[in-house]
Amino acid sequence: MMAVALDSRGRVLASRKRSTRPGLGPEGVTRRVAGAVRTLLNELGKKSKRVQGVGIGAPGTVDPETGVVLYAPNLEWQEHPLAKRLSQLLGLPVTLDNDVNGGAVGEHALGSGQGARNLVAIFVGTGIGGGVILDNRLYHGSCGGAGEVGHIKIMANGPLCGCGRKGCAEGLASRTAMERDMRRAVDSGRTSLVPAIMARLGRERMTSRVIEEALQAGDPLMEEILERAQNSLGLLVASLVNLLDPDCVVIGGGIADRLKDRFLEPIRTTADRHILRAPHLEPVRILPSRLADHAGAVGAAVLAWNRLAGVHPGDS
Amino acid sequence: MMAVALDSRGRVLASRKRSTRPGLGPEGVTRRVAGAVRTLLNELGKKSKRVQGVGIGAPGTVDPETGVVLYAPNLEWQEHPLAKRLSQLLGLPVTLDNDVNGGAVGEHALGSGQGARNLVAIFVGTGIGGGVILDNRLYHGSCGGAGEVGHIKIMANGPLCGCGRKGCAEGLASRTAMERDMRRAVDSGRTSLVPAIMARLGRERMTSRVIEEALQAGDPLMEEILERAQNSLGLLVASLVNLLDPDCVVIGGGIADRLKDRFLEPIRTTADRHILRAPHLEPVRILPSRLADHAGAVGAAVLAWNRLAGVHPGDS
Repeated sequence: MMAVALDSRGRVLASRKRSTRPGLGPEGVTRRVAGAVRTLLNELGKKSKRVQGVGIGAPGTVDPETGVVLYAPNLEWQEHPLAKRLSQLLGLPVTLDNDVNGGAVGEHALGSGQGARNLVAIFVGTGIGGGVILDNRLYHGSCGGAGEVGHIKIMANGPLCGCGRKGCAEGLASRTAMERDMRRAVDSGRTSLVPAIMARLGRERMTSRVIEEALQAGDPLMEEILERAQNSLGLLVASLVNLLDPDCVVIGGGIADRLKDRFLEPIRTTADRHILRAPHLEPVRILPSRLADHAGAVGAAVLAWNRLAGVHPGDS
Repeated sequence: MMAVALDSRGRVLASRKRSTRPGLGPEGVTRRVAGAVRTLLNELGKKSKRVQGVGIGAPGTVDPETGVVLYAPNLEWQEHPLAKRLSQLLGLPVTLDNDVNGGAVGEHALGSGQGARNLVAIFVGTGIGGGVILDNRLYHGSCGGAGEVGHIKIMANGPLCGCGRKGCAEGLASRTAMERDMRRAVDSGRTSLVPAIMARLGRERMTSRVIEEALQAGDPLMEEILERAQNSLGLLVASLVNLLDPDCVVIGGGIADRLKDRFLEPIRTTADRHILRAPHLEPVRILPSRLADHAGAVGAAVLAWNRLAGVHPGDS
């Protein structure tokens, strides 16, 4: 989990990262979140008295009106009143939304999507999440489930996704999918520098750093696997643009933040080839996240701000 | 082209169908549209004096504000001021939008999507088009290009689509795609009743009627090709629901209108399997179009009505 303190102009005053530890259960994790916020308030010193409220993003389906996490399969939560409980613990009003929805809001209000009326954000990590801003507002859908860009189908009968279904973008292009492809290729006898790099860095997973080092060393298998993921992401971006015609698409997440244009450029190339667009229009902008791993927390703060004051920190 | 006259309660008073003849060029086709409207006005007799305005849907990218067709590749039009010209010819105010967008509006206001706040409509014909209603309003996107559901990617490196790209839903599941699959299979030596049915009906294309008759005769190849298309459409619906979380998805077009549940049920089955949805929620409704081939024209009339009166015929 990431906690940030934002001032009224949207600047990050302090930030703090800690592990979530889902094993603690809903109450334990909620106390852990409260602890992270208190640590941040302490760091702010006197300024902490001016903190008006807290915004939080949770993985899964949430009800922003009631502040209840309805269904968070990764945390194994169902119907947890996170906002209310956190508000009791902190003595501050708490606003809840989905975590990646928050990321989209952050990039729109204070990141690379500033000024866009319609925006789609895609965050590539162990999974693929996203959010949709339409007419300058976060779009939730009819049941709060909108924005599941990772579960848009890219390849009928494609590889199995973490959701248990086949062909999702997440099952093709997340870091988890790339790691699976790497393991399979190495198991089947292909050579790669990745296992040695993981051993040297003491990593059990193929993290963004591992991927970056393998690419820097010119590992052909890593390049091939990354290219395949980038191609899938390009198709995903094209599908999103053909459906929603946004001003821009923002791409974030650990691997995008680390590789930057090395990650984005091939996605742009594939997307541009597959986007249906009237010839008089400029190509849609496909931009890297600017807020990096702060995006979700900044967005949650923006949503809290909007709710409390009806004022948008990005506007001031 | 289809023309309908709607009363203030949204009932169809009269309708008329005629061929478009794109070869006549923008001015010729516009005069032909005006002719169709005049024929309808004549049919209405005295009631025609109460007609307040005209709505028209055109294929391609349009600017609803200026009434200009920006880009219509099927008609080979670019920057044609259709609304203004039609208004001159008819002496009535004219409202322009995209034709399938109109279909979505029609189904939302007066068809099977009534009462839905968020809705996606998919029309399967020679191509696949659609429209998106969000928060009870037609969503146009940033450049008027939203709703191209037929060009959402379903299968990376899939078959070539009419748009010149690979893997689009349209290239997998439109009537044109099914006809291509049938021709290829027959050319490669497989047997089907379809060529004989086409000859008997004097059809050069595998129309919805041809498909229906082949299915009624139990043609295994036709069933196989239809199933494949339905599977692709199920994946398309799932992608749309996972992204937009609508109240319902409406499926229309000639083949859906003709085959009804025989067409929809397998789409529902595939979609339900691929939709990510919190367990406490009911499955999203996947409904057949109710307005059939009137949907686009009815929707265009609804949009004209909204623009002229600020009143919604479905509301009265």
